[in-house]
Amino acid sequence: MKTRITELLGIRYPIVQGGMQWVGRAELAAAVSNAGGLGIVTALTQPTPDDLRNEIARTRTLTDKPFGVNLTILPAVKPPPYAEYVQAIIDSGIKIVETAGNSPKDFIEALKRHDVKIVHKCTSVRHALSAERNGVDAVSVDGFECAGHPGEDDVPGLVLLPIAARKLRIPIIASGGIADGRGMAAALALGAEGVNMGTRFCVTQEAPIHPNIKQALVDATERDTKLMFRTMRNTARVFRNAISEEVVATENRPGGCEFEEVRPLVAGARGRAALESGEVQNGVVSAGQCIGLIDDIPTCAELIERMVRECREHLDRARSWMD
Amino acid sequence: MKTRITELLGIRYPIVQGGMQWVGRAELAAAVSNAGGLGIVTALTQPTPDDLRNEIARTRTLTDKPFGVNLTILPAVKPPPYAEYVQAIIDSGIKIVETAGNSPKDFIEALKRHDVKIVHKCTSVRHALSAERNGVDAVSVDGFECAGHPGEDDVPGLVLLPIAARKLRIPIIASGGIADGRGMAAALALGAEGVNMGTRFCVTQEAPIHPNIKQALVDATERDTKLMFRTMRNTARVFRNAISEEVVATENRPGGCEFEEVRPLVAGARGRAALESGEVQNGVVSAGQCIGLIDDIPTCAELIERMVRECREHLDRARSWMD
Repeated sequence: MKTRITELLGIRYPIVQGGMQWVGRAELAAAVSNAGGLGIVTALTQPTPDDLRNEIARTRTLTDKPFGVNLTILPAVKPPPYAEYVQAIIDSGIKIVETAGNSPKDFIEALKRHDVKIVHKCTSVRHALSAERNGVDAVSVDGFECAGHPGEDDVPGLVLLPIAARKLRIPIIASGGIADGRGMAAALALGAEGVNMGTRFCVTQEAPIHPNIKQALVDATERDTKLMFRTMRNTARVFRNAISEEVVATENRPGGCEFEEVRPLVAGARGRAALESGEVQNGVVSAGQCIGLIDDIPTCAELIERMVRECREHLDRARSWMD
Repeated sequence: MKTRITELLGIRYPIVQGGMQWVGRAELAAAVSNAGGLGIVTALTQPTPDDLRNEIARTRTLTDKPFGVNLTILPAVKPPPYAEYVQAIIDSGIKIVETAGNSPKDFIEALKRHDVKIVHKCTSVRHALSAERNGVDAVSVDGFECAGHPGEDDVPGLVLLPIAARKLRIPIIASGGIADGRGMAAALALGAEGVNMGTRFCVTQEAPIHPNIKQALVDATERDTKLMFRTMRNTARVFRNAISEEVVATENRPGGCEFEEVRPLVAGARGRAALESGEVQNGVVSAGQCIGLIDDIPTCAELIERMVRECREHLDRARSWMD
């Protein structure tokens, strides 16, 4: 395939693996890249910048194809040493960075000086336009249906993507809600030049997640996600389970709650433990509404080849209706 | 064009006008049908079944193309005489009915006996499957982004439509979020065989709505809708204005509120008055998130011809990326 995204990133298919905490490790990133997409190593899954250097090196032993590193920038009382992670990325010779969360503007100059292509993920057209002005090379536009942080505007991809496509000059990657060839075909029709998938890549053979979690996502329907932290204006879409139900019940009680009160429930270590142990009820796990479209656990290569084939078929079928 | 929807409904383009209270009158329905789509007269906009007979007759003086009648079935203490409206539809020789709201099962046998095709609008895959089992001919699947009643599942079209397409045997019309050729192309790629548009047809020359309301929708962005009645599990997506903000503030105060308290704010007569007087702040007006995609006030014919042309272009462009 050939779009501005395949050209920019040097990949065969414009299918990007979402940068997922605890999941974006060497094995998955390499599998996606080997299959012709773009694998992403998640920087903050590694406890230190040196661990990130090691993980990047480990990924290189598994693939000779391009892969990227995700850097999610969030406000925090005690933030991680972002600049040091950026330096580790540059020193490691990485040429593609996906930024997410806050504006990446503090790091753009350093990255560009080292010829790193920057894809910024955002959940609104105004933030996408701001990223474009700041000089990023592409944006991932994340709709309401996505896993993780959909923002507070609640605008799904079917509306958000065509507005973004009308207003932006840089290429767009559609993110959120896409898990099959139909979704990929729709994203391209809406004007995106690639797709980003997180949840769908969690349910592959190579994802470093316990099989019970993968099976729980296969068994789930599109109604099995939950939005938590709405009251804190830091909304997160997660798998609906006992923990996420409890968080939402707590924040919605009269008078609401402070984040501190639910912090033990949502601790990252607890989510990680759930992913690794397979105890799906025991931690908060991000999941997008596309879980309703996921009903098998293929390899990344099987998934990508099937998606591309079906994308072509669905576009051909739709086009045949126009005659 | 040729899909199962154009064949079923006997229309040139698979573009259906949504059945909209106060707006689905003869002028708009005839304009849409004359332009090759399917116009829809809204039954309950007419105060009595006899008025509906007259409105259907009036529509026939304006078009010789097929058009349909919308019948929205809602629970009510004092419901309208639905059976009499159905009889008026049958007696008038109407051959296409769009049902919405509750299941149309009580009226299916009578309608089918008179060779009326039934398109049922629903907001979930399980309701669509139920309608299919009950014998409707097609479904309109309404995503979270739609105007009016999106249901309580909050699943947008990008996820809902491909799941519906996998599970249903009858043809699907995509509804909600579609206002241009990109959206139409995406809907067809996702597996729908037609599109339904409400908000977009409100902003046409022929819609019987005050020009100030049309202009307000043109000026709005995708962030200018509001979900009200969430607390009552009867969610409605409407234009964000002083009234809808007040309704939402009232229902969200501690302890909530009874419907009776906000009834004066949302009275249908008040919404109708706003549509007719152009006083956009003075009534609750349904609007979908696709208002962010609407930036002109074309005739229905201009709109439909442009959409179809752009739909083809976007499918062709997407397909060219696959080579």
